[in-house]
This record gives sequence, structure tokens and C-alpha cells, in this order.
Amino acid sequence: MVQRAFNFSPGPGALPLAVLEEVQRDLLALPELGVSVLEISHRSKWFEGVLASAVENLRRLLAVPDNYRILFLQGGASLQFAMVPMNFLPAGATAEYIVTGSWGEKALEEAKKLGAARAAWSGKGESYIRVPGAGELSEVDPRAAYLHFTSNETIQGVEFAAEPVTRSTKLICDCSSDFLSRPLEVSRYALLYAGAQKNAGPAGVTIVIVRDDLLDRVPKNLPAMLDYLVFARERSLYNTPPVFAIYVVDLVTRWLRDSVGGLEQMAALNRRKAKLLYDVIDASNDFYRGHAQRDSRSLMNVTWRFPGPDLENLFLREAAASHLLELKGHRSIGGVRASLYNAVPLQAVEALAGFMKEFQATHTSRKRPA
Amino acid sequence: MVQRAFNFSPGPGALPLAVLEEVQRDLLALPELGVSVLEISHRSKWFEGVLASAVENLRRLLAVPDNYRILFLQGGASLQFAMVPMNFLPAGATAEYIVTGSWGEKALEEAKKLGAARAAWSGKGESYIRVPGAGELSEVDPRAAYLHFTSNETIQGVEFAAEPVTRSTKLICDCSSDFLSRPLEVSRYALLYAGAQKNAGPAGVTIVIVRDDLLDRVPKNLPAMLDYLVFARERSLYNTPPVFAIYVVDLVTRWLRDSVGGLEQMAALNRRKAKLLYDVIDASNDFYRGHAQRDSRSLMNVTWRFPGPDLENLFLREAAASHLLELKGHRSIGGVRASLYNAVPLQAVEALAGFMKEFQATHTSRKRPA
Repeated sequence: MVQRAFNFSPGPGALPLAVLEEVQRDLLALPELGVSVLEISHRSKWFEGVLASAVENLRRLLAVPDNYRILFLQGGASLQFAMVPMNFLPAGATAEYIVTGSWGEKALEEAKKLGAARAAWSGKGESYIRVPGAGELSEVDPRAAYLHFTSNETIQGVEFAAEPVTRSTKLICDCSSDFLSRPLEVSRYALLYAGAQKNAGPAGVTIVIVRDDLLDRVPKNLPAMLDYLVFARERSLYNTPPVFAIYVVDLVTRWLRDSVGGLEQMAALNRRKAKLLYDVIDASNDFYRGHAQRDSRSLMNVTWRFPGPDLENLFLREAAASHLLELKGHRSIGGVRASLYNAVPLQAVEALAGFMKEFQATHTSRKRPA
Repeated sequence: MVQRAFNFSPGPGALPLAVLEEVQRDLLALPELGVSVLEISHRSKWFEGVLASAVENLRRLLAVPDNYRILFLQGGASLQFAMVPMNFLPAGATAEYIVTGSWGEKALEEAKKLGAARAAWSGKGESYIRVPGAGELSEVDPRAAYLHFTSNETIQGVEFAAEPVTRSTKLICDCSSDFLSRPLEVSRYALLYAGAQKNAGPAGVTIVIVRDDLLDRVPKNLPAMLDYLVFARERSLYNTPPVFAIYVVDLVTRWLRDSVGGLEQMAALNRRKAKLLYDVIDASNDFYRGHAQRDSRSLMNVTWRFPGPDLENLFLREAAASHLLELKGHRSIGGVRASLYNAVPLQAVEALAGFMKEFQATHTSRKRPA
């Protein structure tokens, strides 16, 4: 019996055990084929079936309308930071970015290398504790090349509860870290992209969902591997795709559909998981100090600090000793971060919530002796 | 007991069974960690160790000098076709390409989108049956930005037995399909790149070996994911790398070092494997018609045709029935192609050679009844 720890890694994140077991079972040779998924040709009928199935699962889970293409790329969200402006920010136009954390900042920085881009709203002055309110985006120019936002900021733990309300018809979203954690109204977006390694699969594949009419705007003569039109035309098979990662995405999306029952069910479970931790934080009398403002709290990454660094380090050490792993906050802001992606079981979050209460009880009484 | 077929896939290609077994064994949870390699953070100590080990194995196998960096990227050789000129072809300069097959053609095509590039030599007029002789590259301008070549053309089955002899000091090579199949004199190159999915690992990671001084030439303000300097500075950890694929590269390179005994031993076995098939072709009295000229024959991809299309189809069908898989030539040129990458065992090639002899005996006698 293999001992599995409770893994709160911010990404690559936990995967469903059932998926890992299927990968393991067939790793030496796929049934009937005699060849491992790590060795099979991407032009084989078997892989064509896997690719079609992964696309179909995503289309059904997210109710993706017919005028959207679902593509598999490489390079993570970081390469999308460059591809989006290369494809959709022509000379003379301006792109706008809503910046709610470190990833939005990076996306804007990359866009500025390639054209005119500006922050339509930034939470930086407030240390990225919230998303903008509805009234704060009135300045967004509907003629801008596009409006980019980051639906969930993994480092700060700040998430949009719903799409930002704007007049822009070209909404582009980096949803790497909450993709497939809840239903999405795809028709509100021009383009969505997500590195798979949070909720959709292992590191090494990026999912892009793009509205057909945008593809007409792709400039001619882009390098093929940076051209969305090439990926759409070749159905993600212009060159050798990351076969194994796409295979795992197929298994994860099937698990979401068949075992979880869909994204409504997934979202309900994710809300329940996050509430367990936020309730402990809110009842802690400022022992646990949440980073994000309440209305902007992430259901994926719960971030908090302690009254002092000693307690923080002690917390991380004792948590690890209890098999509660990968809770250290990002090196850029410190603190503690619990990532609660789809495959993190309720049981793991219950264990962490229990540990937090116990830890507080021990260390509050110690500091205030009777 | 899992039934494994003989897999002659042109890529993704066969992997060593011992590697697949280790991947399978630890797939649910890495020993001592309780977390799968598919879920582990790329910032974890464990993965840092894997990355360092993969780099070290490559450095030792290829005797890579200290002034070269070994990097892991995504996007395959196809993305390198664009990154090479983006990084090393400044305005005003010209890049030269030796074109010995379909991949060299694509590399040149991509470079032309990004700057001035030309074919210093092309075998297209002769249907890509050979590499240029030593005397044929005298026109190469030593002041060119770089000289690019493709060490092995998988589609045509044409391979350089040694580096082209030129005065260029900036030799850049796409060695995707013969990387790690034999020793290389790395100091003769400015930059080497290889998609892993032939001899080094699964699809989804690209290995780049680049000489330090080239990095000084990278222009400022490239998109981070297209900038070799960023990958060098961040030791391939600028963003989430393809963790699993790099893990498999570490296992494959360890297998090459410890089980095979190094690249000299690997090359000897690869020569022996290829000779088995070329001997059958050469003794076949033109029943099997090799594509490449003898001195340019690939040890990785053996390509041939038949006197007619009926025999070709029959051959492929009967081979598949004998568990000899993935022998169909590339759709652009047809025919038969047997890919003999490192992990294809001698036994598989012996089986194929035997099958070829038997097939010829049956179908020659049938055509010439006594």
C-alpha cells in the first residue's frame, strides 16, 4: 500500500488518485496496443482518439459554444503572455490589463515588450488584496485591442467571483489556476488560456479556448509555433504535441464528468473546502491573518500570515510532520498558502482545518499563561 | 505479463523498458515523499535534484565543456526554428542553412519570417538523397550570423556521419532525431537542440546546449519564454517546466550511462542495428530500394520503397500482423521507414530483418514461377 500525503502544492497540484492509478496500470503498454503512451506516435489512431476525447470532455464540461476552438499548446501561461499580444495587438492599437496580482503584472510586462499595453486597473498600491468593483472599470476603452485579466492570482490568493463587468467585447483571461474549478460562461470571453498543472493535468500542456472570429485577426507570417491559427487549422497537431500530458488531461476531464458529476458539483465541493479554512481564519481572533479582502478571496489558494515569523515557521514544520505538505507561501510574499485544487480531497482540508485549530489553541494559551 | 510490441515509430519513439518500469513503480507516490511525480512542485528539493541530475548525466554522456549551458525548453524543434533566428539573427545579418530534407526546409522557412536567411546548400533538386560533400560548402560565408544544419532527417532517412566541414564558427544544429545516439564533439557547435521524443525521453521537452558567448548576443526585450538568456539565468526554472518529461530524461540518461555504458557503446549497437536492415536492402537485388545514397544513410531512420504500391501495402499489413509496428513512411513521401532509436532492441531489428528476407523470398518466387 502506497502512502500518499496531503498535498497542498500551488502547482503542479494534486491529481485524482483514480487518474494516477489508470496511468500507472497502462504505463508499460496500452491495452491492445503493446506500446506505452510515452512511446506512441501522435499520428496514431489511438492518440487521435485521446485528443478528440479531451476536446469533447472540455467542450461538454464547460458548455463551450460551437464557435470556439479548443487547442493544446506548450509553454504554460508564460508563453501565452507573449502569444496574446503577438496575435491580437496590432501596431496602433492598445491592450488593457486588469492587474490583481503577480501574474497579471507579468502578463502586462510581456505585452509591453510587444506593443502598447496599459493597466486599466491595478491593485498593486493596496498590495493586491482585492479585485476591482463593478464601478471601477468604467474607464476601460471598448475599442482597446482586448482586455486581459487573471481570474485567480495564486500568489496573493485573490480571485474574481465572476467575470469583470465591462463594455469590452474582447475579454481575454488567464484562468490557469481556477480553470475547471467551477462553471464558466465561455461566451463572455474572446480567449481563455490555462496551464494545465493546477486542475486539468500535469505540467507541460496549456489549454486555449478561442472564439473563431479572433483567428481572422492573426497577422500573417507569425512563427508557426506562436500562431493560434496554425494550432486551430492543424487541430493541435502541427508538430509533436505533449502526448502524455494531453492523455492525462483526457483522464482528468473524464473523472470530472463521470466521478465528480460536472463543474457545478466540483464548484460546490471547492466552496465547501475553502469555507473550512476561511472559517478557521475568521474565528481566529487575528491569530491567522488572511491576505485577501473577503469579497475577493480565492477558493483555490487560501493565503494568510501570523503575528510573527517564528509562529509561521513552526506552523510549517509541524504541518509537514503531520503529512500536510507544500504550505509555504510564495517566496515573493511569504506567509502560508494552502492550495485547494479540484483533486485535493475534502478529507485533506478537514485535516488541515483541524490542525490549524489545534495549533492556535496550543500557541495562544502558551502566550497567555493563566 | 504485459505484451510489448516491436515499435519502430519515428517519434515519439520507443523507450527503454527499465525506464518505463521505474516510472510505473513510483507513479502513485515517489518513495519517501507521498506525492506523485505528476503532482510535485517544480520548486521542490526533489525536483531540483532531478533537474541537476539530468543536466549532469547529459554533461557526462556528451562530455559537454564547461562553457556550454544545458537547458530544458518546450515546444519541440519547431519552436527552436523560430527561437534561433529571434535570438541570433540581427537585422543586417544573414543566416545560412544546409537543407538536407523536410525539417531543414521548415527551419529555413521559419527563419525567413524573422530575418535574412538563405540555403547555403540544398539537396531538394535530388529529392534529398544525400548530405553535401566537403567541397560543396566552400561558399559558406564565415561572417554569416550562423550556419544551421539538421544532423538527421527523419523523413528522408539522411544523416550526416560527421559535422559538415566549414569555416563557420557558429554552427547550429537540429539534432532532434540522432541526439544521444552517438558521441558528439560539442565544442564544434555554437548551439545544439533536440526534441526529446526520439532518443532522450517522451514528447514535451526540448534540450538545448548553447555556448556561453552566444548568450551575450541575445537581444534585449525578447519575450521571456523565447529568450535563451532567461532559461540560462533561471536554470530552466523561469516558469513551470515539463516536470514529468524532464524526470523521464533523467531516467533515460541514467540508463544510457549505467546500463548501456555510454554513447560509444550506444553508437556501436546502433550501427549494428542499422547494418542488419541495410544489408537486407543491399542484397535484395532491387526488391527493397533504399532512398538515401549509401554515404548519407541514416542509422536512425531506414527508408525504402518497393517495385510497386501493392507490395508496399502488403508488407505493412503483414508486418503489423507480426507485431512489427509503425513502419509506414511519412505521408509526404510514402514508402517504408524503420526507426531504430536507442531503445529499439537488437532483437526487434533482427525480427524485422528476418521478416524482410522472408517477405522477399515469398513475393519474388511468386512473381517468377518456375
